[in-house]
Amino acid sequence: MTTPPKTMRWNGGPDGWLTMIDQTLLPTEFKEINCKTVEEVWEAIKMLRVRGAPAIGCAAAYGVIIGMQQKIDASSIRDEFDRRLKEVTEYLATSRPTAVNLFWALDRMQDVSLENPSLSPQEMHQRLLEEAMAIEEEDRAMCAAIGQHGAKLIEKGTSILTHCNAGGLATAGDGTALAVMFAAAAQGKEIQVYADETRPLLQGARLTTWELQQRDIPVTLICDSMAGQVMKEKRIQAVITGADRIAANGDACNKIGTYSVALLAKAHNIPFYVAAPSSTFDLSLATGDEIPIEERQPEEITNGMGKQTAPESTRVYNPAFDVTPAELISAIITEHGIIQPVTTEQVRSQIEKT
Amino acid sequence: MTTPPKTMRWNGGPDGWLTMIDQTLLPTEFKEINCKTVEEVWEAIKMLRVRGAPAIGCAAAYGVIIGMQQKIDASSIRDEFDRRLKEVTEYLATSRPTAVNLFWALDRMQDVSLENPSLSPQEMHQRLLEEAMAIEEEDRAMCAAIGQHGAKLIEKGTSILTHCNAGGLATAGDGTALAVMFAAAAQGKEIQVYADETRPLLQGARLTTWELQQRDIPVTLICDSMAGQVMKEKRIQAVITGADRIAANGDACNKIGTYSVALLAKAHNIPFYVAAPSSTFDLSLATGDEIPIEERQPEEITNGMGKQTAPESTRVYNPAFDVTPAELISAIITEHGIIQPVTTEQVRSQIEKT
Repeated sequence: MTTPPKTMRWNGGPDGWLTMIDQTLLPTEFKEINCKTVEEVWEAIKMLRVRGAPAIGCAAAYGVIIGMQQKIDASSIRDEFDRRLKEVTEYLATSRPTAVNLFWALDRMQDVSLENPSLSPQEMHQRLLEEAMAIEEEDRAMCAAIGQHGAKLIEKGTSILTHCNAGGLATAGDGTALAVMFAAAAQGKEIQVYADETRPLLQGARLTTWELQQRDIPVTLICDSMAGQVMKEKRIQAVITGADRIAANGDACNKIGTYSVALLAKAHNIPFYVAAPSSTFDLSLATGDEIPIEERQPEEITNGMGKQTAPESTRVYNPAFDVTPAELISAIITEHGIIQPVTTEQVRSQIEKT
Repeated sequence: MTTPPKTMRWNGGPDGWLTMIDQTLLPTEFKEINCKTVEEVWEAIKMLRVRGAPAIGCAAAYGVIIGMQQKIDASSIRDEFDRRLKEVTEYLATSRPTAVNLFWALDRMQDVSLENPSLSPQEMHQRLLEEAMAIEEEDRAMCAAIGQHGAKLIEKGTSILTHCNAGGLATAGDGTALAVMFAAAAQGKEIQVYADETRPLLQGARLTTWELQQRDIPVTLICDSMAGQVMKEKRIQAVITGADRIAANGDACNKIGTYSVALLAKAHNIPFYVAAPSSTFDLSLATGDEIPIEERQPEEITNGMGKQTAPESTRVYNPAFDVTPAELISAIITEHGIIQPVTTEQVRSQIEKT
């Protein structure tokens, strides 16, 4: 088992820069990008060079550090710094609308500033870097804890279906859904995985297969349309996916297609698990109906893989996410434990106490 | 409304050749291929240059004519001709395993030979060409009848989801599922269509959108993984697909992903219709469990659109079809009428009497 390359790493002090794997080029090309302006971080999130709810949160936190490098010198006053911080966080928040971890991380950076009014701009910049690094470090610990809790749900020899990529590439650590698989495999449970390719952007084909192969876990790639057939053939005993935002009642927003997989799992009596950190919960939303769904460009579908696959000017509907109702979710695995059954009461009791 | 180009056409007499649209190049390139050897016809079916259960049947019938051009001269004896006919039909039958129309058409060509033992080889060759042309002509009439029967099920303003391509390109006429839409539109029912792109070979994106646009029917392209979400948003009031083989109890084999769409339709209380000619029924099979499912090359998934989308040597499962159980099918539309409810009794009463 080799150690996979890190999704992102910070270089240097408050005047440093962020290095990230450009995930749009995987698996045929491994290339890292260096973000030295806040615009480059924004573009990397927008274009999915970095993706996955937890990883987006970490990248945005470091984006704040880069955004604050401008306009700070010995003569800066704190008011000016705070105005700039507001500008930078509001700008980064426009990169993608659905994953709540983005807003959670940016709010946390703002809060640190509010809690430390007496620090000078330069001291504050240093303090914010420490916070971004703490977010990254906590993310790594969160992944490990999700893995340990989730592995308890997996019996020896289980064949698991996953959709999209909720792996190390989607976090600063081992991932969420994939962390469960890595932990189960490390415990000798001899799992195998079916990966939905996950159209339109093929995170399953490009990223999930790549990560599982790096960890020597047997993985079989299928098209999204094959999930039902694979379940019918009794090749699947559990489904595990990540999430981008979870409402107070447990409704879970995740990559488009997750809702279909959950319905298919229900029809075949297969447990459907969601693995996500507590930062993915948005308790301000009573249900998933209130989660904004990002609609992306038609070209992702019509010209997605280097070749035009539909007639010119074909009308397209391209929602990037869907919401799986809580009643289709057998359990939610967080860094604090397992939420089961998935109800408002259970969610509140586990997430609010933390 | 323009007249779409013909899926296939025969040129000349018994010594003629078959011209077909190369459907693998659509929609970016419109090119016809001329098949002058039986091997070229076999390759065109195998590689999906011609596809769709009824169209495969027609192409195979003409393939027999081409295969019989060799070895026929004035000195040929009928025994030799019949041996060659058996060779040619057996060879063409190996092109694809699932669509029963292929075997139906080849059996019909064989039967014509058995029924006419007194004809000379040259007379027999001419008679077989008449039979192939009759198959093509009946296919066209079948499409028109399916359209008329099916349109009765469609109310004004209905938004219809379809999977794969069961259009004119899949037949010699107006198609099966799409014939229903063309007929409903011609009756002023102002329908609109959502087309699943249909991975891995994208028949929905490439062919269904193209056909509907040519007929000025509003069509919106989605990824297969979006069908559930589109249903949840109440954008769909009916699903119609084609079929490649239907068992005696009404279990319907069709393009991979159809089973999932049928389950999703059921979960959203949306009627799910199958449109197919009587030649698609295989009453020798009690249920769909007995239908052989073609497994195709991994490269269709990993390198399907001109670009490698998964790591080297990724394991792949690529079933080309799945079976939708009769209980998920609201009705089957044939050229003889509507089978509803879909039961062994109803299937036998409508298909056997013909």
